[in-house]
Amino acid sequence: MQFLSKRKEAKILDIISVIDKKKKGISLSESEIDFFVKGCLDGSIQDCQASALLMAICINGMDESETSALTLAIRDSGKKCDRSGINGIIADKHSTGGVGDKTSLIVAPIVASLGLKVFKMSGRGLGHTGGTADKLESIKGFNVTLSEAEAVEAVNRTGLCIITQSDVFAPADKKLYALRDVTGTVDSIPLIASSIMGKKLALGDDCIVLDVKCGSGAFMKTKEDAVSLAELMVSAGKKAGKKTAALITDMSKPLGYAIGNSLEVIEAVDVLRGKGPEDVTRLSIELSAYMLRLAGFGDMEFCRSLAEDALKSGKAFGKFVEMVRAQGGDTDVIFDVSLFPGAKISHFVKAEKSGYIYETDTEAYGIAAKLLGAGRKKLGDVPDFSAGLLLKAKTGDYVSKGDIIAELRTSDADCAEDAGRIISSATVISDSAPEMTDLIIGIIED
Amino acid sequence: MQFLSKRKEAKILDIISVIDKKKKGISLSESEIDFFVKGCLDGSIQDCQASALLMAICINGMDESETSALTLAIRDSGKKCDRSGINGIIADKHSTGGVGDKTSLIVAPIVASLGLKVFKMSGRGLGHTGGTADKLESIKGFNVTLSEAEAVEAVNRTGLCIITQSDVFAPADKKLYALRDVTGTVDSIPLIASSIMGKKLALGDDCIVLDVKCGSGAFMKTKEDAVSLAELMVSAGKKAGKKTAALITDMSKPLGYAIGNSLEVIEAVDVLRGKGPEDVTRLSIELSAYMLRLAGFGDMEFCRSLAEDALKSGKAFGKFVEMVRAQGGDTDVIFDVSLFPGAKISHFVKAEKSGYIYETDTEAYGIAAKLLGAGRKKLGDVPDFSAGLLLKAKTGDYVSKGDIIAELRTSDADCAEDAGRIISSATVISDSAPEMTDLIIGIIED
Repeated sequence: MQFLSKRKEAKILDIISVIDKKKKGISLSESEIDFFVKGCLDGSIQDCQASALLMAICINGMDESETSALTLAIRDSGKKCDRSGINGIIADKHSTGGVGDKTSLIVAPIVASLGLKVFKMSGRGLGHTGGTADKLESIKGFNVTLSEAEAVEAVNRTGLCIITQSDVFAPADKKLYALRDVTGTVDSIPLIASSIMGKKLALGDDCIVLDVKCGSGAFMKTKEDAVSLAELMVSAGKKAGKKTAALITDMSKPLGYAIGNSLEVIEAVDVLRGKGPEDVTRLSIELSAYMLRLAGFGDMEFCRSLAEDALKSGKAFGKFVEMVRAQGGDTDVIFDVSLFPGAKISHFVKAEKSGYIYETDTEAYGIAAKLLGAGRKKLGDVPDFSAGLLLKAKTGDYVSKGDIIAELRTSDADCAEDAGRIISSATVISDSAPEMTDLIIGIIED
Repeated sequence: MQFLSKRKEAKILDIISVIDKKKKGISLSESEIDFFVKGCLDGSIQDCQASALLMAICINGMDESETSALTLAIRDSGKKCDRSGINGIIADKHSTGGVGDKTSLIVAPIVASLGLKVFKMSGRGLGHTGGTADKLESIKGFNVTLSEAEAVEAVNRTGLCIITQSDVFAPADKKLYALRDVTGTVDSIPLIASSIMGKKLALGDDCIVLDVKCGSGAFMKTKEDAVSLAELMVSAGKKAGKKTAALITDMSKPLGYAIGNSLEVIEAVDVLRGKGPEDVTRLSIELSAYMLRLAGFGDMEFCRSLAEDALKSGKAFGKFVEMVRAQGGDTDVIFDVSLFPGAKISHFVKAEKSGYIYETDTEAYGIAAKLLGAGRKKLGDVPDFSAGLLLKAKTGDYVSKGDIIAELRTSDADCAEDAGRIISSATVISDSAPEMTDLIIGIIED
């Protein structure tokens, strides 16, 4: 049927035939993906058409080369961040989002203290996970909205700077995410990969270490999904000519014991002063070591020892203080964390029976923290920086009936009861001890 | 994880969770489907959300009970047609659309001449297929836009009336179709089934015979797809308490030899006067017999003999003349079809080599007729009623090189050459004779 096939050819780069192709499970070409991203932004492709394609991608997937093409199209959809003014190797880490993950606050000063440049653009809290920018704002005066020029100057002077992400970079991601958010198309691994990496690559870092969280508190609940996501992101990074690696790390339980903005800053300071929880410390050292290795500082063992030394010697803590000062934050609270404003109310959640904490719905822990005031109910809300959870026992620990498993901090008494109930039902206590998951589950490199 | 499951329950009848369910391939409940259809019409569900769900349905399908639920929700989305004023059993046939299919013009008078009431709301031409309303308008003065009251009066007086479909019935179908048309979600069998039957059931016929076309000139290209569509439609009809049957019929070649509005009326008149092509005659008798059987006139053999007799005796032709007269049409052209205005140009397509016509891209034949002026390029265009194709040879016929295989009729000389080329490349001539497909491929009944 020559005539029919001719008619089909003529339709190339018509959005309906691009949608149709993905609907049938056929891979899209780079030019088709570019056409889609450009059309979404310039309005030539309608939202209903974009949503239909996003759903077809959700169900039928995208392979590595499609995901890389989408990533680069998102990267190139707006302004490129000009980092030519920064002297040195620029490195960053990015977490896919977890509960109690304050490692950015520790890793950035570690590697900056060793000579890497960190120019981090960080997000606000999203869903059940916190955001680094919110955490830093719990430090009185800390300015996360420096101009690009001010930020570059800070990086050159102190080695690091953390500000909020600007809309001028990768605007296609914002457009696509807004659609995905209302059309049930958020949980697609290739779409998540291209969203994260598209934004990241627009910022022009030389070395990128990804922390792909996996487990009940993460967006990826299974190791299989986390590995897929990590592989797609690392391959897109490589395609863009950047040194990229991904650690797959445990998020079946919260990281550390503190969840909530100032509570997490306090725990990060503890780690920086050598007295933080073992899991947060170890993960911070691993992530730092990977950044140093990608930047060419040496092999893993050597880079790990550099990172450990930066913590032990106090160099990393010093760098953190420098950053707080450079961005206008109050350093007194860093030297004496008891000066952080405290929440009005403490509410204690007690073990309902004796036994081992067998598993936790860690996402529910994040939601409880949000309910207590640590997150936003809607865009534009200011979080209660002092609100959150201090865990007293985590998965694997033995508790007796009546032991405190969590202290809830809030200014809103009404929420405390509800959050307490959430924590109770999200905590499974059993007679038998659980098998413990490794903190570092896997590593994906070029 | 009690907490998580509670959160999921709470989301029921939230559009995102309905989308998510279908995305995962889970069947939707009747109330979820009602919620979707109502929300699309009242605007509480955004177009981008509806499109995402339509795409998920396209890829993951819908089972019989979901399709019935969608059909009934579409049926109930607008005004119900009031047929209480009609005395007798109301029957209709509906074709899924083919090339050269003029059976409605024959079947309606056959069954009306035998005492059934036919109140047909018919479509305009769509894509490569013609529409009964367009064909009737090729008869000077024929009014397809009678009011509902006028139509009821005509049905009671003459037994039949054919008008265009009104927007007040099943408005959800119009809304959903407009979205499907731009989002690559047209070719979903359950969506097609619910669209056809939703509209049909809103009209309140007692007996419905469906003619599901199958082959290169139909929307369903394979028998498997045609059977699925037929089964879904018959089951929805049954769910609505209507007597419903479906014939699956061959559309690998055009029906009859005439394609185009007045050309098809002329061929229909030939059939009504007992001298039409065998395939059109046989299919018209079969469809009529099924309508009569569903209406309780007797077994198939008896009903078939009634239909044959209505043709032979001239009763059906007389009924057709009555309908034309009742709707203001010029009956002179019916008694002497040479009075139909002819096209200015005749262009002949000749066999490029000797051999059997092995197969045809029948959809391309329909497109050629449209190009010649028989269809609409855009909504609101008036077709050239005299334009179209008169075939001189069809699949299975032996032709010698240079024999005329089709006569093209048009008023637009520029189009004739192009249409001729389309017909040539859509006609495969081979040394070997093809295996012939049965006209009636299958029958689906309650």
